[in-house]
Amino acid sequence: MSKGLFITLEGSEGAGKSTQIEVISNYLKGKGRKVICVREPGGTPIAEDIRALLKNPREDDSMCDTTELLLMYAARAQLVNSFIKPKLQEGFDIICDRHDLSTVAYQGGGRGMDMNHINAVRQIVLGNFRPDLTFLLDIDPEEGMKRARQRGKLDRFEQSKIDFFIRVRNTYIECAKEDPEHIVLIDGSLPLDKVSANVIACLEKLDV
Amino acid sequence: MSKGLFITLEGSEGAGKSTQIEVISNYLKGKGRKVICVREPGGTPIAEDIRALLKNPREDDSMCDTTELLLMYAARAQLVNSFIKPKLQEGFDIICDRHDLSTVAYQGGGRGMDMNHINAVRQIVLGNFRPDLTFLLDIDPEEGMKRARQRGKLDRFEQSKIDFFIRVRNTYIECAKEDPEHIVLIDGSLPLDKVSANVIACLEKLDV
Repeated sequence: MSKGLFITLEGSEGAGKSTQIEVISNYLKGKGRKVICVREPGGTPIAEDIRALLKNPREDDSMCDTTELLLMYAARAQLVNSFIKPKLQEGFDIICDRHDLSTVAYQGGGRGMDMNHINAVRQIVLGNFRPDLTFLLDIDPEEGMKRARQRGKLDRFEQSKIDFFIRVRNTYIECAKEDPEHIVLIDGSLPLDKVSANVIACLEKLDV
Repeated sequence: MSKGLFITLEGSEGAGKSTQIEVISNYLKGKGRKVICVREPGGTPIAEDIRALLKNPREDDSMCDTTELLLMYAARAQLVNSFIKPKLQEGFDIICDRHDLSTVAYQGGGRGMDMNHINAVRQIVLGNFRPDLTFLLDIDPEEGMKRARQRGKLDRFEQSKIDFFIRVRNTYIECAKEDPEHIVLIDGSLPLDKVSANVIACLEKLDV
């Protein structure tokens, strides 16, 4: 039995990740593959509890950046070790809504944390484990936040100022430029059918 | 205003930390000092939520070692940055029930995690921040677990096998031998008044 594919979706709030996860899932299932969709932070009972800690705004305690970084990686360690790796071995394709690149963009770019710290924790948690392919859905932060607001109440991250999301976006784009072999930048501002067509064109090159 | 003292209590389950925290607190208050007692993991609303995640045994998900390590340090980062450091600056003495040495003993010694990983995360979270003095209350693990069981339901750590606690104890003792200037080993199996007298004798040397 061959190992499954690990595909991740990245992008700012409102970039259209959920829709494209469905597009990718349907494409792979159409090829007769077994597909599981998960999200970060989260995806296991413990990691979902950590997600709630990270996402819920609270008035009695302000989360420090290092705590945020370590909670992100604590959830990632749990999901990758207890779920993603074994499922890939069993031959499932895993599509993950956010993964490590989110930490580079949000905690590194957005919060301005020391990249050496992020790299050190990544090495402990992931070693050389990386996605086979990452789709970065790029959208203007103002437009993305407009979409996010339409979805309802904003979480702790979504409540950040627009400058934060501009830094997140710029970091994402830099990463895609540095590693075009693994990170595909998709223009998320195009009409939906065009975005989906671009994603599928990319999947076709995988020849699965 | 001079900076407060940071004193930590370490030791296996049932070693008598809580009692000695009271002894130390009363001693320092008797000298006219302002004292705050906290515990790890915990001590702030966010860190207490992380503590619940760490302590509660659950049947639907088994926590991996890396997740445990990062949750410990996430809670520590929150407590140290948002509470301990500012309070020390304000002149309060802080007495902390467990701190970084617990991670060395439990995750390093007990779980057998790579000490290079622990050292790397400590550097990110604490830099050069260290307790002024650590009391290590040493007790035979069998005796300690007997005391812990008398207190009620065992948490996720207390449910470990005796071998785990023997490794924890041995690691604690090694650390005390390596850094006798900062870590005072106290025989926790002695009668309570003798343990307290030994702790106080040590505090008197601080000349506060």
